Amino acid sequence: MFPFSRDDEDTFKILIATDIHLGYLEKDAIRGNDTYTTLDEILQCAKQNEVDFILLGGDLFHDNKPSRQCLHKCLTMLRKYCMGDSPVRFEILSDQKVNFNTTQFPWVNYQDENLNISIPVFSIHGNHDDPTGAEGLCALDLLSASGLVNHFGHSHSVEKIEISPILIQKGITKLALYGLGSIPDERLYRMFVNKQVSMLRPKEDQDGWFNLFTIHQNRSKHGPTNYIPEQFLDDFLDLVVWGHEHECLIKPTLNEQQLFYVSQPGSSVATSLSPGEATKKKIGLLRVKGRKMKLQEIPLKTVRQFFIEDVVLADHQDCFTPDTPHVTKKVEDYCFAKVTEMLDEAERERLGCRLTPEKPLIRLRVDYSGGFEAFNTSRFSQKFVDRVANPKDIIHFIRRREQKEIKDESSIDYGKLFKPTAVEGLRVEDLVKQYFEAAEQKVQLSLLTEQGMGKAIQEFVDKDEKEAIEELITYQLQKTQLHLQSRGVTTEQDIDAEVKERSIAKAHRLERGDGDFADQDVSDVNMDSDEGSVPVAAPTRGRGCI
Amino acid sequence: MFPFSRDDEDTFKILIATDIHLGYLEKDAIRGNDTYTTLDEILQCAKQNEVDFILLGGDLFHDNKPSRQCLHKCLTMLRKYCMGDSPVRFEILSDQKVNFNTTQFPWVNYQDENLNISIPVFSIHGNHDDPTGAEGLCALDLLSASGLVNHFGHSHSVEKIEISPILIQKGITKLALYGLGSIPDERLYRMFVNKQVSMLRPKEDQDGWFNLFTIHQNRSKHGPTNYIPEQFLDDFLDLVVWGHEHECLIKPTLNEQQLFYVSQPGSSVATSLSPGEATKKKIGLLRVKGRKMKLQEIPLKTVRQFFIEDVVLADHQDCFTPDTPHVTKKVEDYCFAKVTEMLDEAERERLGCRLTPEKPLIRLRVDYSGGFEAFNTSRFSQKFVDRVANPKDIIHFIRRREQKEIKDESSIDYGKLFKPTAVEGLRVEDLVKQYFEAAEQKVQLSLLTEQGMGKAIQEFVDKDEKEAIEELITYQLQKTQLHLQSRGVTTEQDIDAEVKERSIAKAHRLERGDGDFADQDVSDVNMDSDEGSVPVAAPTRGRGCI
Repeated sequence: MFPFSRDDEDTFKILIATDIHLGYLEKDAIRGNDTYTTLDEILQCAKQNEVDFILLGGDLFHDNKPSRQCLHKCLTMLRKYCMGDSPVRFEILSDQKVNFNTTQFPWVNYQDENLNISIPVFSIHGNHDDPTGAEGLCALDLLSASGLVNHFGHSHSVEKIEISPILIQKGITKLALYGLGSIPDERLYRMFVNKQVSMLRPKEDQDGWFNLFTIHQNRSKHGPTNYIPEQFLDDFLDLVVWGHEHECLIKPTLNEQQLFYVSQPGSSVATSLSPGEATKKKIGLLRVKGRKMKLQEIPLKTVRQFFIEDVVLADHQDCFTPDTPHVTKKVEDYCFAKVTEMLDEAERERLGCRLTPEKPLIRLRVDYSGGFEAFNTSRFSQKFVDRVANPKDIIHFIRRREQKEIKDESSIDYGKLFKPTAVEGLRVEDLVKQYFEAAEQKVQLSLLTEQGMGKAIQEFVDKDEKEAIEELITYQLQKTQLHLQSRGVTTEQDIDAEVKERSIAKAHRLERGDGDFADQDVSDVNMDSDEGSVPVAAPTRGRGCI
Repeated sequence: MFPFSRDDEDTFKILIATDIHLGYLEKDAIRGNDTYTTLDEILQCAKQNEVDFILLGGDLFHDNKPSRQCLHKCLTMLRKYCMGDSPVRFEILSDQKVNFNTTQFPWVNYQDENLNISIPVFSIHGNHDDPTGAEGLCALDLLSASGLVNHFGHSHSVEKIEISPILIQKGITKLALYGLGSIPDERLYRMFVNKQVSMLRPKEDQDGWFNLFTIHQNRSKHGPTNYIPEQFLDDFLDLVVWGHEHECLIKPTLNEQQLFYVSQPGSSVATSLSPGEATKKKIGLLRVKGRKMKLQEIPLKTVRQFFIEDVVLADHQDCFTPDTPHVTKKVEDYCFAKVTEMLDEAERERLGCRLTPEKPLIRLRVDYSGGFEAFNTSRFSQKFVDRVANPKDIIHFIRRREQKEIKDESSIDYGKLFKPTAVEGLRVEDLVKQYFEAAEQKVQLSLLTEQGMGKAIQEFVDKDEKEAIEELITYQLQKTQLHLQSRGVTTEQDIDAEVKERSIAKAHRLERGDGDFADQDVSDVNMDSDEGSVPVAAPTRGRGCI
């Protein structure tokens, strides 16, 4: 991007990481220590690189109420790596009472005269470790109260959000650090639409600041309003560090409309066996000098390898068809060979990486549509107990091919789709997911699009959200009307934009009190982007223009 | 005892407290903050008195897994009061790796160069906040990991306990601080009997040390082996600070056999409405100079008042008998007057004590034996909602009088005793309790004493302990045989002593493997002395000689 010849007294060095999910699967005999080992690596990396501070994008903890062990390990590591004599070489200019409002110690930890902090950690909370209870406390607040973390970006109002930056100066460089802890996406979406979110800016020398924002929301479009479009964010920002999304897309990408960069570090542990989690896990070393920045990617060494591959049985007619004698055994043998191959690849790749755990995560998605039968996965698992970290769920049977072949939506027998299936290891949710994965490649616009249906069904499954269908139909009707008005010229995006306009108008009506949905809370589906969500549209990673 | 003219550089000032039970009833609208307010008072007191350290006797937390709020408040208060610039004026001479073995920071917190500790807290764990899980961590260890508490006295072995003291020196005064976190009483009893508990002593100048021991066990005899007799403890000790027992008996009492003193600070919150909890709650300011000590009692100001009184209806024949018209109404009126009187007394006593919560705890135990009927307590409660902290359980109906009248144990109809009762608010447990409360005043020796039965039934009720009855009968048989042998001359204590001898012999047989109970763990009944336990003998407060 531009040269940072050397680290100097004007250059901020910031370690950025997110979604560490401490405590994930901590009771698993094989993977139990993974998240702890990786936090240790991250903190060690921060120390070795003598960073000015660590910035975490939420979900430091996997569980809202982390286990005693988890808290103990976290406190221990933070105390071990973030306390010490190395001086902190920046100062905070903003009102710290406003910035750090969740403890009785409303100041940055390194300025506390009773604590010897060498690496301050600044963290927003995620959806996993979000505040709960009457006191609105989250697990991070225990770390705050101990003086080991600076929890910021906690908005206490549900009506209006004012994000007040932590103003930090190091030498000539002035950094405005904005943060917003996780909020249910649909609520936040609405608040943005209703202009209830504002980012405060320093009064003087506005252009002299490097503006960094940390957010923990859906960036992928999980539904019409179930994500935060980048365009919602103020264009004065320079860099957005986007948490919550588990796929590592840490290299800053330019949002050409808003002219800011977005870096999505991704999680440091795979919490699902989906393709997004298979990309190499990394953290970032961000350098900021004046208004220039450079982000150095640091691959994590302790992260367990994860290999995922797809097999479409129908593509192997030279080897077997549903009518081949002992076809199921042949398929199983084929899968065995495939997994063995993946394991060999994993082993080659791990050569010399002594910090990488020995057993990789392996997922083979087997599309068995076309008349094939699923084989017994528990017997299959047994063969890999010694080599794979997740022997029990290596194989995932899917039926994508068949769904792709459905040409006309009206021909889908929904009843059949939701009937209990006899296929071992396949759940109704999987079928629903498969359906929408297939459907998303079809016609983008219809009265009840896959998107709408996906959301509606998902909300029914998740929360019994009674208004979901009604709301969706209204939305889709509007959309279809617009489509008809503009037939032949509009794009999906344009339509969405107009729908948004209407939503704003509606919101204004509601504000005035002449709507009847004013108090209706459209609850959010709190899940990570790579955690078993129902992808209702090709992932746009939040780049859809509305 | 002896004069401490002034605090000087040779005098240790130690604040002693125990059973703070942080988080007890924290969700109660009235009493929710009680434990927090009192911890605040205790810490403030320590600060004002410029103590050298705080010594806690266990059960700092009420719940094994304290709520987030509870941990947050605790961390906050400790950070507020125990960190600061006041220098710590004593040094530790012992091997701290041995003393503080539950964190990765095996040294006293005030010597950690990254923490500015002004008042070190030393604490053992209690039965409420005892270590659990594979890691053997307890809630205190979160405070340890944060550097706010020094958790000591955690024995990791279940076979052998070696208590290694923290050796502390201030000026000429040398203090050996021993601690033993809570262990199920019966297990610890057995370990003592089997000589598996040892207290290490400094090699040199043994007589130069003041030996202070903190323990968290039953001191009252809850059953033959369900407590720790003071005589089990080494006689080189100077003072034992006894936790777990909630009644404040903080004034050191001399054990004339062992020639050490025992101070039982008691809890700082009433966790049951029993007489033991009604004594004034206090903490202690212990001064130690050379081998001399002085304990100053400090009444707590923030503790909610608790008044308990007994009413025996049959004693008021001038006012009513079971045959008086509208007798139940009259009894209710009488109780109303009684409670009002208690409230007036509470108010008088509270005059000028602005820190004492306004609403007291009130318990009226109504002995309605002799043909009276219980009145409706929920209607009664309503009348005191505004004045009493525990309106729902002011009245406690008991039937002591009737049981006192039973002259011959064989005449008790056990079947009847355990039949469901129609009396509102009375549970089977209450009846059992009443029975034994009455029974304890009768013949002390019989084939199945009240003590034995009490224990057996309690264990059945609590844990379905199948061997309890068998074990008891064996024990009681031995006892009776001894009694017969020594008819007319022995005392209960002497008999117990002989039984102990036999137990020891049996234990040795078991050790050699020629018994069949070797692996049988006699589980303990984990309850506080004043928390609804079944008092199976007149409380001896552990002074019974065995």
